[in-house]
Amino acid sequence: MQESELLGKLRVMFGGGDTVVVGSGPDDCAHVVSPDVRLGMTADAFVEGTHFLETDSPEDIGYKVLAASLSDMAASGCRPLWGLVSLCIRKDVASDWALRFAESVAAVAREFGVVIVGGDVTSSRRGLFVSTTVVGVPLAGGPLLRSGARAGDVVVVTGRLGGSILGRHLRPLPRVREIAGLMEFCADAERGIKAPTACMDISDGLALDLSRLCRESGVGAILEAQLVPVSAAARELSKKTGRGPLAHALSDGEDFELLLTMPERTWREAEREQVEMGWIDAETGAGLFTRIGGIVENTGLRIIDERGEDHVLEPEGYQHQW
Amino acid sequence: MQESELLGKLRVMFGGGDTVVVGSGPDDCAHVVSPDVRLGMTADAFVEGTHFLETDSPEDIGYKVLAASLSDMAASGCRPLWGLVSLCIRKDVASDWALRFAESVAAVAREFGVVIVGGDVTSSRRGLFVSTTVVGVPLAGGPLLRSGARAGDVVVVTGRLGGSILGRHLRPLPRVREIAGLMEFCADAERGIKAPTACMDISDGLALDLSRLCRESGVGAILEAQLVPVSAAARELSKKTGRGPLAHALSDGEDFELLLTMPERTWREAEREQVEMGWIDAETGAGLFTRIGGIVENTGLRIIDERGEDHVLEPEGYQHQW
Repeated sequence: MQESELLGKLRVMFGGGDTVVVGSGPDDCAHVVSPDVRLGMTADAFVEGTHFLETDSPEDIGYKVLAASLSDMAASGCRPLWGLVSLCIRKDVASDWALRFAESVAAVAREFGVVIVGGDVTSSRRGLFVSTTVVGVPLAGGPLLRSGARAGDVVVVTGRLGGSILGRHLRPLPRVREIAGLMEFCADAERGIKAPTACMDISDGLALDLSRLCRESGVGAILEAQLVPVSAAARELSKKTGRGPLAHALSDGEDFELLLTMPERTWREAEREQVEMGWIDAETGAGLFTRIGGIVENTGLRIIDERGEDHVLEPEGYQHQW
Repeated sequence: MQESELLGKLRVMFGGGDTVVVGSGPDDCAHVVSPDVRLGMTADAFVEGTHFLETDSPEDIGYKVLAASLSDMAASGCRPLWGLVSLCIRKDVASDWALRFAESVAAVAREFGVVIVGGDVTSSRRGLFVSTTVVGVPLAGGPLLRSGARAGDVVVVTGRLGGSILGRHLRPLPRVREIAGLMEFCADAERGIKAPTACMDISDGLALDLSRLCRESGVGAILEAQLVPVSAAARELSKKTGRGPLAHALSDGEDFELLLTMPERTWREAEREQVEMGWIDAETGAGLFTRIGGIVENTGLRIIDERGEDHVLEPEGYQHQW
């Protein structure tokens, strides 16, 4: 297939939208009109062998790469609007693979209201590599940073954690709608509550990521082991690894759930209304947001076990070595 | 080196700027304030073996990847403001290589007024892969598209073409300042001239890229062989390949010069004042912009040789195969 033919097919897939003046097409840049001069931008890189396997389907990989960047936007309290996806594929798989990948990217984009406005595609004898960039605008009350947590805040997570390697790491659900809902909920003046104070997504493991959030905020945190929402996958994985399900929930990577801190009052309101608001965990049918502990002044992480004993929580998780 | 140490070093390198609220740092997104709600966005992918060799230096590769995306911004009549660079390097080269690469990216960014606000870095046993995204805002009179060329327009290029494989392909000079100067020149009401009608950068060869511009505009073009600015590198390469220097100027890839169309009057004004405006070709010391032909209604490309004879110009150049 000639490059021009492949690009033609890709352009049809990535339709325009209200904000797009010149989208994914022949021009050197895409041109868009933003609803706000404040912008959030994030980029992620994914490589075969680390983020997915040669045997993973192009559909799964296409889903994952965009979903991961959308998760970053959610974690920043932003509404994602535009995506750019660059792809380097192996010469032996070539165009059919690229089209299946692109269909999946396009489906995720549509689902979350994002337009793919650009990217690049190339092939090589080396492995598969994908890079995504997403640009968006802050939600009301946003953006959310890692540095805003304060002593007395509640520590909250979405969903259930651990064991994503059993499959969910390829099909994470970016919490784009949920953070938009929560920010709108908090911005409603009648409620008189404040927005979350800090947020990030859990990509390298809860304990490690919480330690990063705490470091940026200059605070510490105490978790309650019994409150940490352990996924069914973490329990299943635990049978194979011999590590406890809680250990998996605390340190497994690629959950792509949100880790938030918020004032006590915000949490009480959100907790009470979360089921009514439709913030529901698909695995349990219960509320999506779970309080797992609190922010304290002293730096470092601690965890209270089921016997009420207090331990240091090591910031374990996935750390890339150089 | 731990990932956090490498990232810490990278953050120091990529300083902030007036438009950057939260730049390259620990947060999941960068946050910026744009001077305009209209945005241009472009992404490029680069892979070892196609865009550079394993033996090319990290400094050359860092230069090239950002310069190429800046060239796309220039070609779109945009001022580049923010960049995101994602990198996958071989495990055996690792952190020192990444730091040298990043220093070079940072230097190019500073030179062209761009802030690197994000990106990602990962390593694998596969080859080197880099992806860049640049976001900016249209210049006055911009953006420039490929689809605006009209019969009667003059066809103009910057610089001198061909033979970039001898070295310039790693150190192209993105025409960011020159397009900003030309657009400002055209926007000056006292001159009463119109902006360029279409623009793109020459990345796959003049003939192929001109055929693309003409196709998007629904027009054709006639070039004059004697007017095409042939680079010294094209002449040198010609001695090795046995192809004429003009053939190299017409079809070699990665010139990263601009191909523009503009009304006759705009060209006359620009030509007359270009040396005074400082739009000077480094190789010859003469004006940077050269008229090479004109746009016609009939589709297809033609070229008039030095004997005044008119031939079909095949849209030759670099075409990626799938």
